[in-house]
Amino acid sequence: MTGTLRVGIIGTGVMGSDHARNLARGVRGAALVAIADAAVDRARALAAELGVEQVFSDGTEMIGSGQVDAVIIAVPDPFHAAGVEACLDAGLPVLCEKPLAPTVAETVRIIKKEDTLGHRLLTVGFMRRFDPSYQAMRARLAAGSEGALLMTHSCHRNVEAYPGQDSSATITNSAVHEIDVLPWLAGSPITQVQWLSGRPSSLIGERIDPQMLLMRAADGVLHTVEVQVHAQYGYDVRCELVCERGSIEMPSVPSLVGADEYIVSAKLARQAAYPADWRPRFAAAYRAELAAWAEASLAGRLPAEAATGRDALRATIVADALVRSMNEGGAVVQVPSVESVLGEDA
Amino acid sequence: MTGTLRVGIIGTGVMGSDHARNLARGVRGAALVAIADAAVDRARALAAELGVEQVFSDGTEMIGSGQVDAVIIAVPDPFHAAGVEACLDAGLPVLCEKPLAPTVAETVRIIKKEDTLGHRLLTVGFMRRFDPSYQAMRARLAAGSEGALLMTHSCHRNVEAYPGQDSSATITNSAVHEIDVLPWLAGSPITQVQWLSGRPSSLIGERIDPQMLLMRAADGVLHTVEVQVHAQYGYDVRCELVCERGSIEMPSVPSLVGADEYIVSAKLARQAAYPADWRPRFAAAYRAELAAWAEASLAGRLPAEAATGRDALRATIVADALVRSMNEGGAVVQVPSVESVLGEDA
Amino acid sequence: MTGTLRVGIIGTGVMGSDHARNLARGVRGAALVAIADAAVDRARALAAELGVEQVFSDGTEMIGSGQVDAVIIAVPDPFHAAGVEACLDAGLPVLCEKPLAPTVAETVRIIKKEDTLGHRLLTVGFMRRFDPSYQAMRARLAAGSEGALLMTHSCHRNVEAYPGQDSSATITNSAVHEIDVLPWLAGSPITQVQWLSGRPSSLIGERIDPQMLLMRAADGVLHTVEVQVHAQYGYDVRCELVCERGSIEMPSVPSLVGADEYIVSAKLARQAAYPADWRPRFAAAYRAELAAWAEASLAGRLPAEAATGRDALRATIVADALVRSMNEGGAVVQVPSVESVLGEDA
Amino acid sequence: MTGTLRVGIIGTGVMGSDHARNLARGVRGAALVAIADAAVDRARALAAELGVEQVFSDGTEMIGSGQVDAVIIAVPDPFHAAGVEACLDAGLPVLCEKPLAPTVAETVRIIKKEDTLGHRLLTVGFMRRFDPSYQAMRARLAAGSEGALLMTHSCHRNVEAYPGQDSSATITNSAVHEIDVLPWLAGSPITQVQWLSGRPSSLIGERIDPQMLLMRAADGVLHTVEVQVHAQYGYDVRCELVCERGSIEMPSVPSLVGADEYIVSAKLARQAAYPADWRPRFAAAYRAELAAWAEASLAGRLPAEAATGRDALRATIVADALVRSMNEGGAVVQVPSVESVLGEDA
Repeated sequence: MTGTLRVGIIGTGVMGSDHARNLARGVRGAALVAIADAAVDRARALAAELGVEQVFSDGTEMIGSGQVDAVIIAVPDPFHAAGVEACLDAGLPVLCEKPLAPTVAETVRIIKKEDTLGHRLLTVGFMRRFDPSYQAMRARLAAGSEGALLMTHSCHRNVEAYPGQDSSATITNSAVHEIDVLPWLAGSPITQVQWLSGRPSSLIGERIDPQMLLMRAADGVLHTVEVQVHAQYGYDVRCELVCERGSIEMPSVPSLVGADEYIVSAKLARQAAYPADWRPRFAAAYRAELAAWAEASLAGRLPAEAATGRDALRATIVADALVRSMNEGGAVVQVPSVESVLGEDA
Repeated sequence: MTGTLRVGIIGTGVMGSDHARNLARGVRGAALVAIADAAVDRARALAAELGVEQVFSDGTEMIGSGQVDAVIIAVPDPFHAAGVEACLDAGLPVLCEKPLAPTVAETVRIIKKEDTLGHRLLTVGFMRRFDPSYQAMRARLAAGSEGALLMTHSCHRNVEAYPGQDSSATITNSAVHEIDVLPWLAGSPITQVQWLSGRPSSLIGERIDPQMLLMRAADGVLHTVEVQVHAQYGYDVRCELVCERGSIEMPSVPSLVGADEYIVSAKLARQAAYPADWRPRFAAAYRAELAAWAEASLAGRLPAEAATGRDALRATIVADALVRSMNEGGAVVQVPSVESVLGEDA
Repeated sequence: MTGTLRVGIIGTGVMGSDHARNLARGVRGAALVAIADAAVDRARALAAELGVEQVFSDGTEMIGSGQVDAVIIAVPDPFHAAGVEACLDAGLPVLCEKPLAPTVAETVRIIKKEDTLGHRLLTVGFMRRFDPSYQAMRARLAAGSEGALLMTHSCHRNVEAYPGQDSSATITNSAVHEIDVLPWLAGSPITQVQWLSGRPSSLIGERIDPQMLLMRAADGVLHTVEVQVHAQYGYDVRCELVCERGSIEMPSVPSLVGADEYIVSAKLARQAAYPADWRPRFAAAYRAELAAWAEASLAGRLPAEAATGRDALRATIVADALVRSMNEGGAVVQVPSVESVLGEDA
Repeated sequence: MTGTLRVGIIGTGVMGSDHARNLARGVRGAALVAIADAAVDRARALAAELGVEQVFSDGTEMIGSGQVDAVIIAVPDPFHAAGVEACLDAGLPVLCEKPLAPTVAETVRIIKKEDTLGHRLLTVGFMRRFDPSYQAMRARLAAGSEGALLMTHSCHRNVEAYPGQDSSATITNSAVHEIDVLPWLAGSPITQVQWLSGRPSSLIGERIDPQMLLMRAADGVLHTVEVQVHAQYGYDVRCELVCERGSIEMPSVPSLVGADEYIVSAKLARQAAYPADWRPRFAAAYRAELAAWAEASLAGRLPAEAATGRDALRATIVADALVRSMNEGGAVVQVPSVESVLGEDA
């Protein structure tokens, strides 16, 4: 494949629309040529906004149309697996929003299908791996001047919980980003986890919030992750890497978000703004992810840093173990390896 | 007692000398009139430096001399109990450096002795209760605009471990400050604890460092405390109070230390200094503690915010439970109440 | 013109290469199709790197080739005018790096030529107008919650002076960015200026550094601008808008640069990195400028916020007045209006 | 004189009461023994609050009473000179609030009187010299790692203008602190000044606010000082020392004030508090000033870093020159030397 990658997007919710707009704004070597959504009016409206000519009401039809070279899947989570499998069957590179699939069984099935192809087509959208801050921290850690990593501390706070979700969604939907990115930063898989609750906020009675997740890596590093989905005050993601001779910290978000890069002094306070959701915070990451995926897809390979199917399975296994710990009242739970889950143990 | 409180200090190590110099620098209503140390030459040198006339080689002798109205005990930990008991016997207000005593048994014995007196004489030197930052955070939390407290996160990092201490000293010597101050901030006693290690630093093989302490309060609040006694990079104490509608954070230390309140831009970096040990960080707290203790002692009462014998016992019980968790490989350990330990249960 | 804007770049120095790489990385609606440079080997190397097929040794030839729809001029300053005029003659939209021309006379000549065309083709590359921080500060100021603007303070510091430049280049080359962006932020033209020196650095004897520039706007606002071209410590641009009821500040650079978004604690210091030059600091601005210019060029208009020929003339007139103040030992100098310079006064 | 310095305070307004409370809180070697104020009820109330036994309605009477060893003068500015002269006549060490006197003539008269005594008794209360930040910045500058000082930038902002003052009071009352402390930091006297207005705030029509003061030192360093007496947003003092190889900055105030050392995240903002006036910001400076003055007075000398009569004269001369520049529409005004004003030129 040379020239321009013709990209089709399935799903026009928040993430699908954001990907579509990012592509329309210009990604080297890629052009958004088709949009599919069962809510075809919404697909048509987005296509009109972005000057995209082809609209499909059925993603599978788009995949088989011969009009697209690569596909982004941004439909609701339960439909991810079917979309990905259709792409694999059609031999198209596919970027699937996380999670790859809600269950380990489906995830394994997708991985095994990809394995039979003989080459890699699947990328999973854990975009933090493309965030400039996480990348810079990872490079600094690897440079070694602070010595070996010993512990990490993360916070992940959203302004408001999505209605209708339960306590486990905090893990599988929000914390899953840390579950993916921390081992990627630290270079060692999670082998043991433990779940703890904070004192539950009275503002969302039906869901335990905040939660505290402990994850032990194979090399002994301890990751602590606080997740608060109803933190009210702002969208705030923090991360600190505690090393033998120093510490590497991500600044709290106000310094990073594009829309509000200033400080206001007024009414006896010095103030910096938090974003209301994750999009300003990770806008650069999403753009970089798309660019790397388009470039790699054109070259017939996967983007180097991106999460593969096995990475997504690893995150799902850890999240499942944390949910089990939660259901068992905070028990320490061992995490099976990806290899054992796939039946690939020696 | 009116006029001036004649204070005697027993012990001229780091803390004793600091208290002596603070008194000599001027504390309302108090005058340092006597210094005692078995190392009498050291006591004499300090007395000469500060213009103090009376020097004793034996603290007990000083207590019985009739020359002092109140006593500060800053001898090595194993000798605290004897000094405190001598003061109680003599009817003198006493400010004892933490820990009150190394064991629960001795601590209980002191408390029972004080109980028999019919009035309070004993204050324990948990100075963070007098730190302006902790006090301001406590007041802000109490004001309630951020809603109920849900979780706290603390870090306590020293530059270098003291030689000759073992892993439990990290809890009983360093973390004990958080063990005291967090329930004081949050208003609810610790009922359950769990100890975890980080990946141990290779720079001090004989001692597990860093450590992660989890403490659950009676009202459900979860306290996480990371302690690193050999952090190398600087003395750094952090604390965040995570509430229902917002978060209250202590700034990292550079902004607080008196000696280095500036930022230097040089060599492609913008830099603020960390102190090398706890003294610049808590200088204001030590001075405020002395002033409150002197004022209260003159008035025949205890300082309102200061730690009592029962507070010290509470901290020791929690520290003991954490050491037990450590010895049991990270087990969840229930913390007995002060009342049950003292046999005061209904 | 519909579809894709075919862009040609003339000049492959630092700025030309950066623009070329930004275009190659993907700008909506634009494709880099030609590169011209008298140093044709350098042009060929860049074209090869970026997959651009057409290379010219002569920019004028490229302009007349019919192969490009729009042109970026990034040759050395003395050749800007000729390149721009060739574009105007050819009816091509042109983005010219600042300064539009070294002298007022040439600048006026270009403006008058464009005026005769009947439509606008010329954009001048004052990229700070596209920087997210300056844009956000401008929007905040316009929102009015801090009241009227009274004064501004800016700093503009480079690590090392370019060799071979004199003291006036500090104004015409570096400070010219503030000279353009401050009236754009504040909404009122500069009418009076005064130049002052700091104590000259001994590290670059031949050039007065730092310098302090005072600019008074028509509405009375006073702008103070400190420029230090040999500041050594890092590339640092600051700006504060002092208003009646509050202040709006751009954070110092470490918090903004993409490459180093972390804080390191090590060796008794807490450190954030400065960039070594302006490119990381203004990378987002350059990308946004290109995108706005491409979109506007496709639509047959100028980008709304960008600097026009008249804006460039305004900056040149102010810079000239500051150079005159410098040459007259710090005299207060009146700034003629653009209209009077163009002979357009009523 | 040995033992305790018996201090009397004349004046029980804001500053007098603050000094009295600081003394009562404990200053080594000093005891507040007498309070004088023509408003004798106010003096009596303060004396009762602080346990001070002697109250005078007439300061001169207190000076002559034999009951005090040293005097603090905190009466309204026009009465400073008379109080100081009475102390000099009585041979008592005196700490006079700034300004020493409203006019150069009175200031000179006081200095000449002190000169005739044969020893020094007079200290003027420019307390910033005792502020830990200014002291640390001065020490860092002197250490030389950032190279020679080239320029300084200061801001001095108050929440609200005092009613009834005119534009010159901004210089003589507020900026006079910078006029004193900057040459003390930088080590070279001011020889030339220039006054500029910002665009005047509409919130206090009768007074030009903010103002911009430029001061050139004998060694070429340029000091820029922005003063805004009606800044509304908070009490904020800033200072940056721009050097050849780096910059030394005082952090903006929130990080320094004792009462509010925390950061609150709430309502989409991260906030640190400004104090409402100068007292929290300079509380440590006032205490250190008193301690140094008491110690020196006991030893029969002046405190090493404090401002002398000649220092106060120097500040008055510079302030007068700035007022003249203001009255002459921003003219550059030469500053006579202290020696020439005193007629001491060779």
